Amino acid sequence: MSKDFQSWMGTVLAEVEAALSEQLPAVGAIPARLHAAMRYATLGGGKRVRPLLVFAAGELVEARPERRIAAALAVELIHAYSLIHDDLPCMDDDVLRRGRPTCHVEFDEATALLAGDALQTRAFELLAAPGLAEAERQLEMLALLARASGSLGMAGGQAVDLASVGKPLNQPELELMHAMKTGALIRAAVLLGAACGEQALSTAERERLDHFAKRVGLLFQVVDDVLDCTANTTTLGKTAGKDAAADKPTYVSLLGLEAARRYAEDLYQDARSSLAGFGAKADRLTGLADFICHRQF
Amino acid sequence: MSKDFQSWMGTVLAEVEAALSEQLPAVGAIPARLHAAMRYATLGGGKRVRPLLVFAAGELVEARPERRIAAALAVELIHAYSLIHDDLPCMDDDVLRRGRPTCHVEFDEATALLAGDALQTRAFELLAAPGLAEAERQLEMLALLARASGSLGMAGGQAVDLASVGKPLNQPELELMHAMKTGALIRAAVLLGAACGEQALSTAERERLDHFAKRVGLLFQVVDDVLDCTANTTTLGKTAGKDAAADKPTYVSLLGLEAARRYAEDLYQDARSSLAGFGAKADRLTGLADFICHRQF
Repeated sequence: MSKDFQSWMGTVLAEVEAALSEQLPAVGAIPARLHAAMRYATLGGGKRVRPLLVFAAGELVEARPERRIAAALAVELIHAYSLIHDDLPCMDDDVLRRGRPTCHVEFDEATALLAGDALQTRAFELLAAPGLAEAERQLEMLALLARASGSLGMAGGQAVDLASVGKPLNQPELELMHAMKTGALIRAAVLLGAACGEQALSTAERERLDHFAKRVGLLFQVVDDVLDCTANTTTLGKTAGKDAAADKPTYVSLLGLEAARRYAEDLYQDARSSLAGFGAKADRLTGLADFICHRQF
Repeated sequence: MSKDFQSWMGTVLAEVEAALSEQLPAVGAIPARLHAAMRYATLGGGKRVRPLLVFAAGELVEARPERRIAAALAVELIHAYSLIHDDLPCMDDDVLRRGRPTCHVEFDEATALLAGDALQTRAFELLAAPGLAEAERQLEMLALLARASGSLGMAGGQAVDLASVGKPLNQPELELMHAMKTGALIRAAVLLGAACGEQALSTAERERLDHFAKRVGLLFQVVDDVLDCTANTTTLGKTAGKDAAADKPTYVSLLGLEAARRYAEDLYQDARSSLAGFGAKADRLTGLADFICHRQF
């Protein structure tokens, strides 16, 4: 990772963290325990891959800063809500997230459930704020985020994942599941970033960007599966080896470790080359794909 | 209840039921179990008080039919999601709703959790649909619904409710809790209905309508507490006597049964009189307040 890219990431992460803190209900505001849980589960951790993708895609269109940060926050709040609910005992029943106790362990199940619910609401509320952009543009962004999050996107992918435990999925079935579960929101992050400029992308540009976004969504998951198998719990900040233990189909269980690694590399190269036509404006996106492919956590 | 009012209610309920069925994911669409749970928890039951309020308030402004039904559905989907999550074992742990097994009993906890999540998403998605109204108007409606549903509205009220079990609340504390937990969404229903016309209400009209909406929200809860204490489980379609058994503060525990009934009657009269200036256009709203006050279930 170049120094320049590292410094860009640091700047974005700091802006996102500060804005999240500002846009979440204040410490002590009633109901204090709910708000504490919302802040606990959202602030001070996470790779912020989705906000980074919003910012990086925003480089293609000279994104307006106020739209870009709202989009970045909205997509991260959806992600944060999904993690709280995924970790609940009735779902993955996990106790560790971002190196800390999961929300329901730190608080309680009911508070964690409501914190997830309210974070989802807050995501849509942020994008509906008056004057953020032309109203039509805001509606497009809202619709895009909702489609990616709902029963045909992220939440639907969770349901397919639940139904797949102990079942031998083939590669197309596994890719459909991940395209919904993690891919849809990653894709939304990229498209939201590209919606933050004055001008929209051309149809051809949008198609190339969308191809990139889909490849990166899949890449993210393949690398996640590799790390789940090769990294340890401390490095990951979440329980390692869980998918294998739960008899969940993964790219590693399907392809084997080495082939999964090669597949990740292929996806990365495919993602990169789809951005060739954008020139230097796509450097941040390419850098992020590199980071997602070669990360160790 | 007059024949005319009864027939109006029947027409609205049929329109809402058909539109909900159409706007929810189709039977069999993948993930089929999640979609079945979403449909199970939303269709074929419920008093539909919130959609009725949207339609009734719409009478004040000659509401456009396509906006009115979208608003009615959005608010009902938020309500349906909240009921699924409220009934979960980590919340109220209830097995009966609308005379049938609750969603997590009929399906499973994980599916019920995701069904609630995806219904919330669908509510916002509906209001973001392109071309529903002027885009600015749609954003206002989205913001209104989000504020009413989030941590300072419905979800926040649930958190205050959880924190209040076994604690002696006084009347102002109880009213604040209910103003958030049930009042905020009922108020949103009324204001959304009034946002469905070509012209907005004047500030003075809006203030009177808002007073009505707040009174009706409170009235709904007081009557709920009375019925929880006096009606049986079969009539209610949900477990009767639960709040008392759970040592939750209610208007009956606070005021006594007779005083709670008188309080409901006072709220009804106050709500009615705040609509006096609207003339016959407010007949449906008045009729609904009457229905909410004097219902037996």
